[in-house]
Amino acid sequence: MTDFETVMPPDRDVAAAARARHDNLTKPPGSLGRLEDLSVWVSSCQGVCPPRPFQRARVVVFAGDHGVTAAGVSAYPAEVTAQMVANFDAGGAAINVLAEVAGATVRVVDVAVDASEPLSPSIGAHKVRRGSGNIAVEDALTDDEVAAALDAGRRIADEEVDSGADILIAGDMGIGNTTPATTLIAALTDSEPVAVIGRGTGVDDAGWARKTAAIRDALFRSRAVAGDPVALLRVCGGADLAAMAGFCAQSAVRRTPLLLDGVVVTAAALVAEELAPGARQWWQAGHRSTEPAHTVALRSLDLEPIVEMRMRLGEGTGAAVALPIVRAAVAALASMATFGEAGITA
Amino acid sequence: MTDFETVMPPDRDVAAAARARHDNLTKPPGSLGRLEDLSVWVSSCQGVCPPRPFQRARVVVFAGDHGVTAAGVSAYPAEVTAQMVANFDAGGAAINVLAEVAGATVRVVDVAVDASEPLSPSIGAHKVRRGSGNIAVEDALTDDEVAAALDAGRRIADEEVDSGADILIAGDMGIGNTTPATTLIAALTDSEPVAVIGRGTGVDDAGWARKTAAIRDALFRSRAVAGDPVALLRVCGGADLAAMAGFCAQSAVRRTPLLLDGVVVTAAALVAEELAPGARQWWQAGHRSTEPAHTVALRSLDLEPIVEMRMRLGEGTGAAVALPIVRAAVAALASMATFGEAGITA
Repeated sequence: MTDFETVMPPDRDVAAAARARHDNLTKPPGSLGRLEDLSVWVSSCQGVCPPRPFQRARVVVFAGDHGVTAAGVSAYPAEVTAQMVANFDAGGAAINVLAEVAGATVRVVDVAVDASEPLSPSIGAHKVRRGSGNIAVEDALTDDEVAAALDAGRRIADEEVDSGADILIAGDMGIGNTTPATTLIAALTDSEPVAVIGRGTGVDDAGWARKTAAIRDALFRSRAVAGDPVALLRVCGGADLAAMAGFCAQSAVRRTPLLLDGVVVTAAALVAEELAPGARQWWQAGHRSTEPAHTVALRSLDLEPIVEMRMRLGEGTGAAVALPIVRAAVAALASMATFGEAGITA
Repeated sequence: MTDFETVMPPDRDVAAAARARHDNLTKPPGSLGRLEDLSVWVSSCQGVCPPRPFQRARVVVFAGDHGVTAAGVSAYPAEVTAQMVANFDAGGAAINVLAEVAGATVRVVDVAVDASEPLSPSIGAHKVRRGSGNIAVEDALTDDEVAAALDAGRRIADEEVDSGADILIAGDMGIGNTTPATTLIAALTDSEPVAVIGRGTGVDDAGWARKTAAIRDALFRSRAVAGDPVALLRVCGGADLAAMAGFCAQSAVRRTPLLLDGVVVTAAALVAEELAPGARQWWQAGHRSTEPAHTVALRSLDLEPIVEMRMRLGEGTGAAVALPIVRAAVAALASMATFGEAGITA
């Protein structure tokens, strides 16, 4: 099943009511800048003005390995993916700490980690395969695996929304995953590889050259399926990317706001917008990472990052840093006094 | 008393230890970008690594009127300053709401509101005068008033630090206050008026022209005291600006980190750096506002804003939006697992 239900837009009447309310709060109209836009967006997503504070912010980290690490595209060995899944589970990773200070909880999902057993049955409940194929030389997935991974992401979004999540963050973990992410972005935006390929976790010059060669080879293989997002996931994506795409698309179908993270999640979001047109109206870009492909993908989605902190970690960390700003925006619209309430003559 | 004690720099050895700790946490070195820099800064200000979470974040809003409003430089009547002080006291203003979501408390100080009585004895405990002079045609203050206002800011910083504040935010409230702030920045950075004059709370074209004329006149008057920051406060500043300058300088003397807000606070900070050289090492720029003079002042102080949200309200709101990011930075450095703790092979 690679079809998604039609995405409905956030409520325009509520957005207008939220803008009107802002103009009556005790400040010059528009003086809270982007905070006003964010609060109007949340209000229109919730369909209510004033907006409600988020009660259950949820980060889902999608973990998967990539056969293309055999081409020497990363500064880290592939074993680190499974070790980091254990670190998420133990609460020691950056996303655990940053989610906690932002009032969010973290779920990690093993979509395609290259380990014989998932860390736990719940973490592995949606597992598609051990690692995705080496996209430099072969397809990442079979057609059935693409469908299974998209469906895993869709079901995870449903589980989270059904459990009361009122804002979602998608995160990634997987050594080598900026290679398929960059390939997908280049393919979907028709970009020159050298204009979009970054250092990932910090690969050296020789590694960058290997990464560029792998992406060129994967892009060459992808030409036969240009314009077909599902086929692109098969040829040059990966199970984790497909699951994130399903998650981003389904969160929009379920009318739940979502903060995108860095280049990997945003590559999946580009695919999701193809699969479920209009989904991007339910998303904000949490941050802008240092990866060049991220900026290209954000421009294609017409999304402006909330923060820009030169981060390049993934895991959902950039979105987690942005979450308190969205909370602040909601609070301002919901809780400030109006001119009338404050007895101000302006 | 316009002299400040010598400012000591934040602890360099602790900064080095914090950088070393970051490189051993479970992430690629440097991958948290600016968050790493912010956490190292807090650690070095506190003189301890790992840094402690902030226990008492405090916003102080300095309120004052400005005689130059008679020249028609603002979109709002001067009475709004006193009305907004009452709104701060009642908890209905933007800074009240944004401080609360950021875990900070707010204190409002009537330095020079043009009202016959302060709203309360505590709010008026440091009052210098009713309104500052119209800088287009006369000095803002007398020499004694400059000294009293600087000392008020110094005493307020001492009160807050003595009460346990471990991070401070300076905010401003005063109809017309971007006019003296812009004048001070132009005078201290030798900038052309038209390159730095903004719309303040949203003045129209005719008001902008009046504001420009007022600033040109004030700058002409300031030429006789070029290079003397205390005299500049007298000629083209204001009591609220002088108090903020004293506050920013003394917070550095007291080794307490401080987040600057918008153009008004940053104008005062430019003066403070002249009065207490090195004070800027104890400050971060919370945000970049839409006022052109703000960017000029930040460049002069060599400070990079944490967020950029097109805000232009003042009150400390831009800094309050940045505070959760600083908290997140501290938490990452303090609480993430090291590679050794997580058993990761990288």
